[in-house]
Amino acid sequence: MTKPIIWTWDWVPEGPRGFVRDLRLRWACEEAGLDYEVRTIPIADRGAGHLARQPFGQVPFLTDGEISLFESGAGLLHLARRSEALMPRDPAGEADVLQWVFAALNSVEMVSVPWWFLGINGASEADNGLTGWLEQRLTHMERVLSEREWLAAGQFTVADLIMADVLRIKAVRRFGDRPATEAYVARATARPAFARAHADQMAHFAAADAARR
Amino acid sequence: MTKPIIWTWDWVPEGPRGFVRDLRLRWACEEAGLDYEVRTIPIADRGAGHLARQPFGQVPFLTDGEISLFESGAGLLHLARRSEALMPRDPAGEADVLQWVFAALNSVEMVSVPWWFLGINGASEADNGLTGWLEQRLTHMERVLSEREWLAAGQFTVADLIMADVLRIKAVRRFGDRPATEAYVARATARPAFARAHADQMAHFAAADAARR
Repeated sequence: MTKPIIWTWDWVPEGPRGFVRDLRLRWACEEAGLDYEVRTIPIADRGAGHLARQPFGQVPFLTDGEISLFESGAGLLHLARRSEALMPRDPAGEADVLQWVFAALNSVEMVSVPWWFLGINGASEADNGLTGWLEQRLTHMERVLSEREWLAAGQFTVADLIMADVLRIKAVRRFGDRPATEAYVARATARPAFARAHADQMAHFAAADAARR
Repeated sequence: MTKPIIWTWDWVPEGPRGFVRDLRLRWACEEAGLDYEVRTIPIADRGAGHLARQPFGQVPFLTDGEISLFESGAGLLHLARRSEALMPRDPAGEADVLQWVFAALNSVEMVSVPWWFLGINGASEADNGLTGWLEQRLTHMERVLSEREWLAAGQFTVADLIMADVLRIKAVRRFGDRPATEAYVARATARPAFARAHADQMAHFAAADAARR
């Protein structure tokens, strides 16, 4: 069994700590009980070497033996195949997970991240041209989450991991009164595997601060 | 072998014709030579029955024997497992396809669709708060596409199908001078399987017009 290696920045400022997407892959490895390693690339140098492995100049990417994968969604599906704690093995269960992984990234995050981006660039909620669309998507999620504990296959899966990571952004959680969504995010982030992944990411960047002094 | 059923609207106005996402699934079936069927749901009635199968009230979704999948990305990966014309079977090739499918949906379309949405709601290119970010993503894609014919595994795959469908939106293609991207979109949409899928979608909605008269 090869050991997955999660690649992330050597350092980031305080703002994004706890939200850098290597957390998604750390969390998945923790849920699955997979032995893994974290390695870094310098955030100050996003040159050709980095672009060859992550064509948009971002993190994370995952290496696993001969396999190399950028895009956190792709890395999660790769890891999910290694453990039923992340995805059931029956075709119907797997399809259920697959559709919700894509829903998190292409139906919810496709609106929430650009909405957040416009916000940090100065748009108020009223001025933000994506507010109505985001409201609509979150309302659909609230309905779904009020009907079930976990999204797919009757168990916690990698679909919940990614959806909870998309929904836990504070800007989105403050956005209206959606108790089922709030409870879902609380339930997912209360898992010991999330707590370990989160604490490890925070410690990783804190150590980088110390090394810079 | 079960026959995939692609579900789409019974009718749409002229604007979106040729771009409704059932085209992605039609195109995949055509590339793979899979026998498939198209069935419709009434666009005028997006009630509880529809939401149970597509929680965001959209199309397409795919059924295949006991399997049901919403999200075009999930449907594409499901179909891709049925044919090496869509995805190679070796783990490295499959990982390569996987990362580019997610890149199309979560790195490019996550910016291009909200950018387009703000545009149809009145933002000019200069006013559109996502213009700079979209430029950046398209510049990365131009670099990648100037270096290779197809994105993954050295062959046309479902990753090209989805990336070309994301990039062929006229608003995005008009956006700057990117010859490698333009040539890539032309190469992908010149494939007979795309032409059949596109013509079939156009004919499907034209027939719906005729039935309404």
